[in-house]
Amino acid sequence: MKLLEEKIKKDGMVLNEHVLKVDSFLNHQLDPSLMNEIGKEFAARFNGNGITKIVTIESSGIAPAVMAGLHMMVPVVFARKKKSLTLTDDLLTASVYSFTKNETNEISVSKKYVDANDKVLIIDDFLANGEAALGLVNIVQQTGAEVTGIGIVIEKSFQNGSRKLQDLGLRVESLAQIASLTNGEVTFINEKVEEYIK
Amino acid sequence: MKLLEEKIKKDGMVLNEHVLKVDSFLNHQLDPSLMNEIGKEFAARFNGNGITKIVTIESSGIAPAVMAGLHMMVPVVFARKKKSLTLTDDLLTASVYSFTKNETNEISVSKKYVDANDKVLIIDDFLANGEAALGLVNIVQQTGAEVTGIGIVIEKSFQNGSRKLQDLGLRVESLAQIASLTNGEVTFINEKVEEYIK
Repeated sequence: MKLLEEKIKKDGMVLNEHVLKVDSFLNHQLDPSLMNEIGKEFAARFNGNGITKIVTIESSGIAPAVMAGLHMMVPVVFARKKKSLTLTDDLLTASVYSFTKNETNEISVSKKYVDANDKVLIIDDFLANGEAALGLVNIVQQTGAEVTGIGIVIEKSFQNGSRKLQDLGLRVESLAQIASLTNGEVTFINEKVEEYIK
Repeated sequence: MKLLEEKIKKDGMVLNEHVLKVDSFLNHQLDPSLMNEIGKEFAARFNGNGITKIVTIESSGIAPAVMAGLHMMVPVVFARKKKSLTLTDDLLTASVYSFTKNETNEISVSKKYVDANDKVLIIDDFLANGEAALGLVNIVQQTGAEVTGIGIVIEKSFQNGSRKLQDLGLRVESLAQIASLTNGEVTFINEKVEEYIK
């Protein structure tokens, strides 16, 4: 997605070879107009797949997911990383290890909002090692629902999350695919391809 | 806001005289179309106020805030309840006590995204005792920015949060104002008024 790639080039900050910081439009400050375009793009890519529900995870998945839900006209459920006092219904849970934070969170979704008849699109802001996405897949599959696809805003393609999900037979659509963050610079997969074609 | 009040009556669950659960469209599952209408309503109410930025708090404030940001064409910043490893810039913080959870969280916003020239609209999902909103007001005022208004999706008007904010001279716009949750039923302020007029 050209608009997103340009935004990443312009406003993303490469902290090191593994970490890209996009706090100015996705992880702390949000660019609502860009989020809307991202929602439209997910809707276009999964149009005709009969999606009935979007599942994401707090907090940075919420903005892209709610915009996708708006354009696909389906509800969005966001998994919680911490148990809520008023969310006491039967919960489906999965353990998610975060490499960046070096901690394991138990994520949860209420059984009330996903069931065996659902065709689910999982949306998240980043895909790196795939831990969060795999946790969401685990939860959705516990309900008997189908994971119809996985929509990612930014994929760090030099890590193995996308491979792990595809090995499970899942379709992954990433709007920006980063080939590398070397020398303080973002290089996208399609730039590598263009270079190769030349 | 009629549409929101109807949704609360239809899908809200009154757990006791103090707690209304709206997990089916605001706090766990999201209704994107309703969120969009809520965003439009905030935009209409604060139109002409020169708002330059919206500040909210993760997680349930994000969906209404990003929709408001879309319609008002301004960026949204969501305060974090937990420190992020990659969010290491100069942080503005405030302590927020949660009555429901009986715990104090330190909430934070990076100095990079709000400055003295901003006119800020604070948005949150619920207003009860006002602790979260006051924490956000505190953070915004630390930057020298103006708090131009406070937009709340659901106000529990039988608690004193709204009064506290208004006593500070702040304008509070709540899209649904709950007068009481007695007998397992939601009664809105405007229903009380209608009854009084009769």
